[in-house]
Amino acid sequence: MDKTGKYLFMAEPFHCDFSHRLFMGHLGNHMLNAADFHSTDRGFGMNYLNPIHKTWVLSRLAIEMEEMPEQYSKFYVETWVESAMRYFTNRNFSVVGEDGRVFGYGRSVWAMIDTDTRQPQDIFAIRDGSIREWIETERECPIEKSSRVKMGGGAELVRTIDTYYNDVDVNGHINSVKYIEHVLDLFSVDFYRIYRLHRFDIAYVAESHAGDRLNFYSEKTADDECCVRITKCEDTGSKETEVCRCKIEFVEK
Amino acid sequence: MDKTGKYLFMAEPFHCDFSHRLFMGHLGNHMLNAADFHSTDRGFGMNYLNPIHKTWVLSRLAIEMEEMPEQYSKFYVETWVESAMRYFTNRNFSVVGEDGRVFGYGRSVWAMIDTDTRQPQDIFAIRDGSIREWIETERECPIEKSSRVKMGGGAELVRTIDTYYNDVDVNGHINSVKYIEHVLDLFSVDFYRIYRLHRFDIAYVAESHAGDRLNFYSEKTADDECCVRITKCEDTGSKETEVCRCKIEFVEK
Repeated sequence: MDKTGKYLFMAEPFHCDFSHRLFMGHLGNHMLNAADFHSTDRGFGMNYLNPIHKTWVLSRLAIEMEEMPEQYSKFYVETWVESAMRYFTNRNFSVVGEDGRVFGYGRSVWAMIDTDTRQPQDIFAIRDGSIREWIETERECPIEKSSRVKMGGGAELVRTIDTYYNDVDVNGHINSVKYIEHVLDLFSVDFYRIYRLHRFDIAYVAESHAGDRLNFYSEKTADDECCVRITKCEDTGSKETEVCRCKIEFVEK
Repeated sequence: MDKTGKYLFMAEPFHCDFSHRLFMGHLGNHMLNAADFHSTDRGFGMNYLNPIHKTWVLSRLAIEMEEMPEQYSKFYVETWVESAMRYFTNRNFSVVGEDGRVFGYGRSVWAMIDTDTRQPQDIFAIRDGSIREWIETERECPIEKSSRVKMGGGAELVRTIDTYYNDVDVNGHINSVKYIEHVLDLFSVDFYRIYRLHRFDIAYVAESHAGDRLNFYSEKTADDECCVRITKCEDTGSKETEVCRCKIEFVEK
């Protein structure tokens, strides 16, 4: 089996925005699927980990796109493991058209945790460190690594939302992709007529659950760039905890 | 080509709820995709209609499920045209496992409109009424047709939400599936631990757009059954217009 996994997807009509291009949230979902299929096919996926009370947890995701696939077009998400350390592994993605054209890339960082204790686990303890066999050192991912999202004190509360049934994933947590969607919903449809999302970085800090209230704090950090911090309140009046942090870069169309 | 189209889908991990079963909204999306693929393959799809300034508009959708596909399972959505009249066509669905087991069925009603005037169009005027060749009279859809959702005066305003970028489809309208999700979000995760959604009926009355505020009015119409009317307000203080009406039937797990 190849070190890189390659999975075919389609930009379904209802997964595209008003400009007939795939929504970033759905692309993120396809990347998470590709990661899951790739690791499952190679013996270190959720289907192997969950019965032994372990799971992969997405820690960071960065997606940088030159173009988004158009409605009805088919495209591949390719994914490979760039490196693995005891507590983290780096997994990259490329998004490639059927004609070989590259639309963009992704980078992600994953931790492994024990599902009972929620404590980090030694990745190399799984199947005698078999993940090492799949590390691809030859292949480059030409986008920058995600760096820590730095936010000053100038972030302003721009929205508060409640979370519901459809926000919750199979683990009972707010779905990683839903944060991306909620953040991109901070910008109006009219804004997206002028600007195209170029890069989205997200660092997941803590889990949130159905019923948690999410607060979005936004800060403009450069021309066409802003950072968003999401916090949760578990109950009315309870203290606010940081859930994740994003950096969003737009380019004029 | 067969009168019935058969399309394979997978219950993707992030498309499943906390019980590891496919969300109803994603099943609805798969049905709409199947309808689109089926009509395109047979010459009367959006790809043929849009260039001649016409489009299909979903008027009603009813989905009745004995069971929802489990996470990672593959299933088929089969779809066929039950009948066609001048201004409406009835299209049915069945959801079938890889082993042939039937999970449930769907029924839908579609109109064709002119995309410039928004006026109803004669379906038989398309390719000399070629849709007639595809009408399947032999195959039964064993669930009840959707009847008009009757609501008394007792409906209570239970939620108001704003609509954003991710709610909007390629036509600039609020995505048909998003209404289903917003309605199912009226029920808590704890409610879904006890009850399973058995049937969902939705009648689309008018279109809404990004930025419209949606109001949800709910009325309990029987044990384990309730109706929800959605209205929109285009601007603060503007008059409320009905957008759609749903009937939701739950069964105890």
